[in-house]
Amino acid sequence: MTNSIAKIRKTNPIVLNVSNSVTQQHVADAINFIGASPIMFDDEREASELINISSALVINLGTTNRSSIQKSILSGQAANQKHIPVIVDPVAIAASTIRTEHFDQLIKKVKINVLRGNIAEVAAIAGVDWQNKGIDAGDGQGDRLAIAKKAANQLKALVVVSGQEDIVTDGADSYLISNGNQQLATNVGSGDMLDGIIAAALGTEQSLESCVLGTAILAIAGEIAAERFPHQPYSFFNQVFDVLGLMDDSQYMRYLKIKKIPAQDL
Amino acid sequence: MTNSIAKIRKTNPIVLNVSNSVTQQHVADAINFIGASPIMFDDEREASELINISSALVINLGTTNRSSIQKSILSGQAANQKHIPVIVDPVAIAASTIRTEHFDQLIKKVKINVLRGNIAEVAAIAGVDWQNKGIDAGDGQGDRLAIAKKAANQLKALVVVSGQEDIVTDGADSYLISNGNQQLATNVGSGDMLDGIIAAALGTEQSLESCVLGTAILAIAGEIAAERFPHQPYSFFNQVFDVLGLMDDSQYMRYLKIKKIPAQDL
Amino acid sequence: MTNSIAKIRKTNPIVLNVSNSVTQQHVADAINFIGASPIMFDDEREASELINISSALVINLGTTNRSSIQKSILSGQAANQKHIPVIVDPVAIAASTIRTEHFDQLIKKVKINVLRGNIAEVAAIAGVDWQNKGIDAGDGQGDRLAIAKKAANQLKALVVVSGQEDIVTDGADSYLISNGNQQLATNVGSGDMLDGIIAAALGTEQSLESCVLGTAILAIAGEIAAERFPHQPYSFFNQVFDVLGLMDDSQYMRYLKIKKIPAQDL
Repeated sequence: MTNSIAKIRKTNPIVLNVSNSVTQQHVADAINFIGASPIMFDDEREASELINISSALVINLGTTNRSSIQKSILSGQAANQKHIPVIVDPVAIAASTIRTEHFDQLIKKVKINVLRGNIAEVAAIAGVDWQNKGIDAGDGQGDRLAIAKKAANQLKALVVVSGQEDIVTDGADSYLISNGNQQLATNVGSGDMLDGIIAAALGTEQSLESCVLGTAILAIAGEIAAERFPHQPYSFFNQVFDVLGLMDDSQYMRYLKIKKIPAQDL
Repeated sequence: MTNSIAKIRKTNPIVLNVSNSVTQQHVADAINFIGASPIMFDDEREASELINISSALVINLGTTNRSSIQKSILSGQAANQKHIPVIVDPVAIAASTIRTEHFDQLIKKVKINVLRGNIAEVAAIAGVDWQNKGIDAGDGQGDRLAIAKKAANQLKALVVVSGQEDIVTDGADSYLISNGNQQLATNVGSGDMLDGIIAAALGTEQSLESCVLGTAILAIAGEIAAERFPHQPYSFFNQVFDVLGLMDDSQYMRYLKIKKIPAQDL
Repeated sequence: MTNSIAKIRKTNPIVLNVSNSVTQQHVADAINFIGASPIMFDDEREASELINISSALVINLGTTNRSSIQKSILSGQAANQKHIPVIVDPVAIAASTIRTEHFDQLIKKVKINVLRGNIAEVAAIAGVDWQNKGIDAGDGQGDRLAIAKKAANQLKALVVVSGQEDIVTDGADSYLISNGNQQLATNVGSGDMLDGIIAAALGTEQSLESCVLGTAILAIAGEIAAERFPHQPYSFFNQVFDVLGLMDDSQYMRYLKIKKIPAQDL
């Protein structure tokens, strides 16, 4: 892997965010602590200028509204023109017509580089029936990896599916990351933070491996935080931020539990 | 009491929020840690679809604006139709004409099930003169319980008045909860969090007792957090979230300090 | 100095905020813990009524949008009429035409009492070439004090420039505050919190010395928090809030490292 935490910290890429208003502070913190710089914006007229100083764009549909649709499309198109990566998080996409339409409109007008969601969200996009209950991933059955690859091939994008085991795939090669701690899922905003950390890694270098790096960073941070706070969910979460701020590549490599599944193996 | 923390955690109701933008993360965390799932939304067009997957609705007037009035009314009406409880927090209602008008418009078009505020806010609604200074409850004199009951009878709603002693009333029977810690009042967002926790309890079972349960949960969490952090207001608040995440019914019952005041006693 | 932490806590001024949506909770907490009361609002129609109950106004351009321009101007004009101080934070002003225009429109219609920014932002306003990269202060060369004084004289306002050494100037007399800890800069929102704390001090008493007081309070809080958490950036930040909540004037005076530079010295 040519990308690394040291490289993110040295490059200090700016990550621009069409953000979920609920979790903005946590997302900005996560981007910041891993060595990138966050900008959240709220006026579509500054989208292209802000893209000019940014190295990655995150579009989060969590608190989508009339104005965020415009912001998403304009900043996404500007990002496409500048060839900087666009990470989309389809929060609770199946929960409302507006969210589904917003996503459909977006992928018609903007080339998405990374889709990051839970299995219910990614399944909804891949057209696979999967129980979807609001913001939480459902418990239905199905082949998670197959769904991730299907979405990747449909969107011609990298796909990251968060869960007990995280999946990162380009539709052919895939990685399974088995780091993490379940307390990450019980804190609101960890998925949105993951988007930001992946964007920080991609803003440093565009590759499937950068998605793996970003995904594993947060999972490992969760694992380390849980060593100190196995049972206190909020102290755990505070600790995650400290760990993100201090993590280096040697710690990362010591913890990394990853399995590559080449295209032909499926 | 038939409702319980165990029942909330098992039912895992979705609580939909027209939220105060300042405190959204804390409110989502509180709802989450007590065992429910929060959704915050920002587009009135998805109100009715989101109500369809929700078990309770919280309308917070804290950062009211043109679009939040529409969102409040549409989601409130959808909640009424589905018979799911509507909890309204009239933050600083007397501080501006817009807030007063927003509330008046809301109660004309939406049946409110629970009103939750401090004594200054509830007094303003009940038409009782009470010193009102922005977000903080004033120090005026008056019979807090009588004001709460007056508001309950006017609105035909349950009323929760937060304070050193919390009041929960349906206009006839009332409960006084004397748990809590004054550091709760010195943290921004504890009232909004209380709305969410009450909604989680009501989303599990609609009753006066669920309002008591939700109200006492946060008060007890404050009491327990203060045992560890009697003098550090922010460490205290972080601790409140840990306690919410870990609280069970036996701990709740051990701490509960409650007094029932039957209708005829007043 | 006639103003003091004790005076802020006793006066309990209300600080009204046109806020940066990302950091609202942290800003409200900081205002609150130092003994003032925060109000964030989101509807320009209530600007003048809210000013009527407030003692200071903070206008933050961090997440500027169409509606925030209106809110800024209307609340700023109301503040001018009531002679309450207006503190403006030109977040990333050079990053987009909209931000620059918003600021230019604002200073045409509103008398600004305090400008608070990093050196890149203040230099952009003073018309001095300085490397500006998004939200972070650049590393360019130049005389920081001279830039601050130039901006102060142009705007006829007090200017606070945050940095390793904070500058407070009225364009003639200046103060250098060398308290602080670099972990403040690595947390998103510390600048916005500083705006709020300065506003709390100014809401108690309008003077250059109140700007010094507000600026030094946060710097000292950072210094004290770093004694306990020298290397954990988020624990450090949590600690800052505790320290703010507990700080008194004797602790403040013990830590204060300040140097006055009279007008004639430059």
